[in-house]
Amino acid sequence: METPATLITRPENPKTQTSYVRIRLATQSDVPHIHKLIHQMAVFEGLTHLFATTESSLSSTLFKSPPFTALTVFILEVSLSPFPPTQPDPTLSQFTPVETRVILNSPIVDEDYETFRVVGEECLDAVVAGHVFFFPNYPSFLSKPGFYVEDLFVREPYRRIGFGKMLLSAVAKQAVKMGFARVDWMVLGWNVNAIKFYEEMGAEVLEGWRPCRLGGDALQAYANK
Amino acid sequence: METPATLITRPENPKTQTSYVRIRLATQSDVPHIHKLIHQMAVFEGLTHLFATTESSLSSTLFKSPPFTALTVFILEVSLSPFPPTQPDPTLSQFTPVETRVILNSPIVDEDYETFRVVGEECLDAVVAGHVFFFPNYPSFLSKPGFYVEDLFVREPYRRIGFGKMLLSAVAKQAVKMGFARVDWMVLGWNVNAIKFYEEMGAEVLEGWRPCRLGGDALQAYANK
Repeated sequence: METPATLITRPENPKTQTSYVRIRLATQSDVPHIHKLIHQMAVFEGLTHLFATTESSLSSTLFKSPPFTALTVFILEVSLSPFPPTQPDPTLSQFTPVETRVILNSPIVDEDYETFRVVGEECLDAVVAGHVFFFPNYPSFLSKPGFYVEDLFVREPYRRIGFGKMLLSAVAKQAVKMGFARVDWMVLGWNVNAIKFYEEMGAEVLEGWRPCRLGGDALQAYANK
Repeated sequence: METPATLITRPENPKTQTSYVRIRLATQSDVPHIHKLIHQMAVFEGLTHLFATTESSLSSTLFKSPPFTALTVFILEVSLSPFPPTQPDPTLSQFTPVETRVILNSPIVDEDYETFRVVGEECLDAVVAGHVFFFPNYPSFLSKPGFYVEDLFVREPYRRIGFGKMLLSAVAKQAVKMGFARVDWMVLGWNVNAIKFYEEMGAEVLEGWRPCRLGGDALQAYANK
């Protein structure tokens, strides 16, 4: 058995580890990682029977519209080295990547390190740790757009550090910057840790609503009536 | 007290009434009616404390993008006369208005007839009876777009005729036409009539999910952290 790949490559201090974290807009080259992240989320939620996404279906539907006008993905990367300076991209002027430094109490052991390594970057030890997947919605009682967060996911070895909060916070900041009214998402009622996390951040967790869904054969049948 | 305005103007038969029904894309001139429909829906749901929409906020956010690429409103109109032939609009080529004729068992008494009358049309007795308000979403497990129905509303005198089904069906047909994967919406758990209606049409009504919402001051506070 191979030794799990880890981030323990250059600990400045055996007890703590400085890591650099960046949240940036995903691009076409992130599709294989996004695909694996969504799959891991389906496993976590016990919903793999509903998972039908392929790299090819993602490639053909993502990045067709400017960021924030349709579905948008933020990627959270972790590295032991600082990220190289971001070159301003005039086409992405609405968003500046968020960069920060975190001191971890213990090094992270990441068995999927090679799978989620960011290839083709100057910063060769960076790894994708999570993502948030969102698109505009439109609360009709406010008649202002908002963002709907379809997925928020942090891979297991990177949890309990605050990365989920950083991802959601990046969406909230972007909503405020764009004058949007709200950020909405859904949580599974059994996920008490997530509910606690959302309530602590000031979100309302509503009761009494049930999602309805018409898809697959039922959608075809209904449409053909 | 005034006599309520009604649609009882030309009953061919005192026991039944033929009406013509049309579902079409809303335009800027429908904003006053859309505003009143959303308000009536807030009253019905007991959520007027959350209602902050104005005609002006609707005008400045609706119809900014081509239909079906962002928020889209279908209006359902009822008339005692057939609707004039629809002129094909090349900019709206993705949607052909749905027209049908219904035989009602009894004439409809509509106290808000004057308020919801369609002005500026050749067909002067047409009245707005309901609407559906929707926009694209993106189920990540399928990586195909769908539609999210934010509002589906039929005014009280026009219920129990099948107009809600016609509106939802128009959205479902459009989803299928565009190769979309799904139609999603939410229902209040206490609205057992609606749940029954949705289940009978083949929709899944899911349990265990809770909507989360970060808006207003909480959004500002979170974004400024």
